[in-house]
Amino acid sequence: MEGVDHLAQERSKAQFDVDQMKVIWAGSRHTLEVSDRIARLVASDPVFRKDNRTLLSRKDLFKNTLQKAAHAWKRITELRLSEEEAYWLRHYVDQPAYTDLHWGMFVPAIKGSGTEEQQKKWLPLAYKMQIIGCYAQTELGHGSNVQGLETTATFDPKTDEFVINSPTLTSSKWWPGGLGKASTHAVVYARLITDGQDHGVHGFIVQLRSLDDHLPLPGIIVGDIGMKFGSGAYNSMDNGVLRLDHVRIPREQMLMRVSQVTREGKYVQSNVPRQLLYGTMVYVRQTIVADASSALSRAVCIATRYSAVRRQFGSQDGGLETQVIDYKTQQSRLFPLLASAYAFRFVGEWLKWLYTDVTEKLQANDFSTLPEAHACTAGLKSLTTSATADGIEECRKLCGGHGYLSNSGLPELFAVYVPACTYEGDNIVLLLQVARFLMKTVAQLPSGKKPVGTTTYMGRAQHLIQCRSSAQKAEDWLNPSVILEVFEARAIRMSIACAQDLSKFSNQEEGFAELSSNLAEAAVAHCQLIVVSKFIDKVQQDIPGKGVKKQLEILCNIYALYTIHKHLGDFLSTGSLTAKQASLANDQLRSLYSQLRPNAIALVDAFNFTDHYLGSILGRYDGNVYPNLYEEAWKDPLNESVVPDGYREYVQPLLKNQLRNARL
Amino acid sequence: MEGVDHLAQERSKAQFDVDQMKVIWAGSRHTLEVSDRIARLVASDPVFRKDNRTLLSRKDLFKNTLQKAAHAWKRITELRLSEEEAYWLRHYVDQPAYTDLHWGMFVPAIKGSGTEEQQKKWLPLAYKMQIIGCYAQTELGHGSNVQGLETTATFDPKTDEFVINSPTLTSSKWWPGGLGKASTHAVVYARLITDGQDHGVHGFIVQLRSLDDHLPLPGIIVGDIGMKFGSGAYNSMDNGVLRLDHVRIPREQMLMRVSQVTREGKYVQSNVPRQLLYGTMVYVRQTIVADASSALSRAVCIATRYSAVRRQFGSQDGGLETQVIDYKTQQSRLFPLLASAYAFRFVGEWLKWLYTDVTEKLQANDFSTLPEAHACTAGLKSLTTSATADGIEECRKLCGGHGYLSNSGLPELFAVYVPACTYEGDNIVLLLQVARFLMKTVAQLPSGKKPVGTTTYMGRAQHLIQCRSSAQKAEDWLNPSVILEVFEARAIRMSIACAQDLSKFSNQEEGFAELSSNLAEAAVAHCQLIVVSKFIDKVQQDIPGKGVKKQLEILCNIYALYTIHKHLGDFLSTGSLTAKQASLANDQLRSLYSQLRPNAIALVDAFNFTDHYLGSILGRYDGNVYPNLYEEAWKDPLNESVVPDGYREYVQPLLKNQLRNARL
Repeated sequence: MEGVDHLAQERSKAQFDVDQMKVIWAGSRHTLEVSDRIARLVASDPVFRKDNRTLLSRKDLFKNTLQKAAHAWKRITELRLSEEEAYWLRHYVDQPAYTDLHWGMFVPAIKGSGTEEQQKKWLPLAYKMQIIGCYAQTELGHGSNVQGLETTATFDPKTDEFVINSPTLTSSKWWPGGLGKASTHAVVYARLITDGQDHGVHGFIVQLRSLDDHLPLPGIIVGDIGMKFGSGAYNSMDNGVLRLDHVRIPREQMLMRVSQVTREGKYVQSNVPRQLLYGTMVYVRQTIVADASSALSRAVCIATRYSAVRRQFGSQDGGLETQVIDYKTQQSRLFPLLASAYAFRFVGEWLKWLYTDVTEKLQANDFSTLPEAHACTAGLKSLTTSATADGIEECRKLCGGHGYLSNSGLPELFAVYVPACTYEGDNIVLLLQVARFLMKTVAQLPSGKKPVGTTTYMGRAQHLIQCRSSAQKAEDWLNPSVILEVFEARAIRMSIACAQDLSKFSNQEEGFAELSSNLAEAAVAHCQLIVVSKFIDKVQQDIPGKGVKKQLEILCNIYALYTIHKHLGDFLSTGSLTAKQASLANDQLRSLYSQLRPNAIALVDAFNFTDHYLGSILGRYDGNVYPNLYEEAWKDPLNESVVPDGYREYVQPLLKNQLRNARL
Repeated sequence: MEGVDHLAQERSKAQFDVDQMKVIWAGSRHTLEVSDRIARLVASDPVFRKDNRTLLSRKDLFKNTLQKAAHAWKRITELRLSEEEAYWLRHYVDQPAYTDLHWGMFVPAIKGSGTEEQQKKWLPLAYKMQIIGCYAQTELGHGSNVQGLETTATFDPKTDEFVINSPTLTSSKWWPGGLGKASTHAVVYARLITDGQDHGVHGFIVQLRSLDDHLPLPGIIVGDIGMKFGSGAYNSMDNGVLRLDHVRIPREQMLMRVSQVTREGKYVQSNVPRQLLYGTMVYVRQTIVADASSALSRAVCIATRYSAVRRQFGSQDGGLETQVIDYKTQQSRLFPLLASAYAFRFVGEWLKWLYTDVTEKLQANDFSTLPEAHACTAGLKSLTTSATADGIEECRKLCGGHGYLSNSGLPELFAVYVPACTYEGDNIVLLLQVARFLMKTVAQLPSGKKPVGTTTYMGRAQHLIQCRSSAQKAEDWLNPSVILEVFEARAIRMSIACAQDLSKFSNQEEGFAELSSNLAEAAVAHCQLIVVSKFIDKVQQDIPGKGVKKQLEILCNIYALYTIHKHLGDFLSTGSLTAKQASLANDQLRSLYSQLRPNAIALVDAFNFTDHYLGSILGRYDGNVYPNLYEEAWKDPLNESVVPDGYREYVQPLLKNQLRNARL
């Protein structure tokens, strides 16, 4: 079977320069080169094998994760990989591990909230992995609401220490990744108490385990919280539980960049603006949006390739059945997800720029765009992670029965992805934050204050609340300004309707609670507008490569018109378009599907996934699905014997009608 | 903690007779009594324990399933349980097993397609479980399309035998439950070939394994197809692969009720009408709809109870935080699912009646209502299973982070449920069947032929295509005839629009393919109308019990108004209602959520689940969630030691900077 390519014919149909599209997807030729090189390095290393992962017991899976993390670190140091290369290596190992939290949360927390002195002490230890850290914030009884945390850090002026304590069962730290078994240290979030006064939640560096023998230090109970969704998936992570029984740490281990406790026990604020901390949040959410596009593109790649391999029905003359990808119902579910993967990719790229922009402004003490940037990242985190979680499961369904097999890769991809909808801000809670910002912006419109950034369109409220879409024929729906206008009109009309409804309540908070569903919908409309407009911006750039721009235009239009179709109720009820115009948009959408069809395989090839990283028999690059499914089946432990374990005790007596005497 | 009931206060708020609601949910006092008794029997039997299931390896899980199946059979025979009681026992064991297919597919296939003689021979063996059977239809390369199956059954007149053969890799039987390890026999579907002529797909009884030692018979390769979605879940089932290498069976083992092969090798049709076979399909789909309501109600029960236990935000004065169930965003996601569980329950009950009705008519050689019944069951299977799969995952998200823990019960419930969207007809394929029937009905309207059953409303097309909804204030949306009319108007207008668009195509099949997405949406509209109208019918019955009817009215209205909101684009674009009316409906919906709120816990108590069956710490009857989550964590194998396996090899050398010399 070597060298076979069942998708060669599909690939030959592509009407654009796939290599150039790979550069666009990667972000730059440099990134493509680096990520490609590291992806192959990981794929060729037997220690990083992951196709047997769903068969491992919890303990073996965790041990395998420790091995991979150590091996990754070894390769990183041996090969003297750059920070960028090391990032890609961890990415392609593709197994949640304590190192994700060490590098992604522990190090940034110290960088963001530690004083220079604290950074100087702790960062070198963390960079060399002489300590392993995690981020212990959420508690058993307190998830989203950080202000509700119960853990206390009481200053003891006698000894110049903080006493960290879990006063109740519900105050047990619960969920932090890496906490259960691997971490030696944690940034623990606790209510700071000095002289009987509660100053709210602050971060403290707490050593959890001995660096000699890894045993928990006195006063510390630490463990794993148990099995999670799926086989394989996040079970490689030691999400942990932590109880602290009056554990003492030196005063210097409170993260003191923004506020301090003095030797005398006085609580003081530094002159470092609190807002600086928001920069980190923008950064973290930007990475989450990038991850969304990455996860969705994997699922889409699998479903697209298998839809071209799989044939069902449609054979009239005993010939080949029809490729599933040729069915309009398949296209109308799959292609919008393909378009979404690209859309999220570009909005993620833009968020990277936004982070740089915000950081520069913060350093110049300019906080003017921060609320807008904060709302925008919150909303995009919510929108992209929800759509990705749903999209992965839809891709699984698009593969028919075989998508249900672990070796399709889709079940694990789903199980490992869905927590993104909950962590770093529950998606609904985040939408309500966006809505709050939108209501504020609407309220300020009469004052003449110009809305900034992604809310700039709200400055044209006058026009947008009364405009009528000019679309008169299907082709008008290819015009970016026609598309943009209906998205803007819908978004602002929903926001203004919410503001008007809110104004009928004497108590604003009550009103906000009562109307929260409508408010969340208005926030979604605003966020979808951002995604559409950033995609349009991207497409309007100068894009090299034969046919590449054309494909991006098709994808952009599919994303926009599909969104209109899916949320048609919003567009019609706000009068942003008419039923007739909606019908024309739908006609155009169908035509776009046909245009995309011959390019579908090449468009997922552009993601440049190795078969190792993709981890799916259905999504194999060569499309050689069935022989591999067949061979793989026999590797299941159940097939070690033709007669199953338990036959003598539980099947034979039943067949022989001898159960009555059997002891079961 | 014994005797604690954290939800007692919630229960005291209920404004209706919960016991009477239990009767309504169960269908009758008798069913409630029987199912309740058996549920407790199963819950109290240690062999049926299932809280450790997600920790078992594949082999141990399968062995555990064999044990449970044997024990269930032992209890059924020991206690001389009735057929009804035996059904409930298997139901509450709640672990997919080969017996599901033996009783649910193998036995019905012989009953439905076997001659009287064949039934007399095989059914007693099956009833006593002296043979174990499965249903081997789908193939590795052929799922939905039965006509595309490749397995052949060639008649050999010399020996009076059929030769069953798998000519290609893709013709391997693939997926049948119970096939891999447990079954001794299968009904194998294969292309019947006599004298070189292909007569299409027929069923054959094939013995797979020796009844002495359970070894596969000559020419038979059989095994398990490997791990599937999730931990626990469907991995207890031996979905199998089967290859047949010219396996010979006596001619008498072709299922010959509808067509026969004679001793001479002549293919003849019996005078038994083919349509009789559709009766079975109606039956199977009716059970799937009932299962949907059962699965969704479990998820809703867990999410509702935990939403009352869990508190987040909203504490102004350091007091208790707000119960999550009091947030409108939570209500607007949860309560429609609670309403859907009830809606699917009642439409399932009605389908039971429909099955009886169809059966009676078939026996009287009246096939007039069969196409309508067939379309209606196909559509309801599709609608309810899709909504249930999505609904379970939504319930998981509604539980926040803890819903991601296996012991919440929700991950396994999801993983075990989702195949229902694919098996017994892919949900999209089924919708297109409904659409085909709707197009036929619309085409026949001018002829004056009266549409029957669930399409009766189409007879009022004249009125429905031009009527305007009379709703003028929010309360008008409590009026069943107002609700029914907009659902009817939307459904028929979408069907007629499709028919008109189709008529523009010169080739009808091409048109159907091109417009299939729109057609599927029209089918959904029709099916939602059925669910709403059957719920309304139910509520209009005489319903005893204080406040019970009132609660059902609230649920029915929530289901209807939520559906309007979710599919608003359909309603507005067809002009079935105006934006203003939609806004009034939405106001009414919010008010209904408030009315439902105090009854929420009692409404899920009415499902009468034992904690054993529910299998969720978050959904415990007593609401005592956190201490149990905490205790359960320590049972994970990872917590057997405080220092994890692998520490010495993979963590210590890393912390000590000695990785370079380590062999990993």
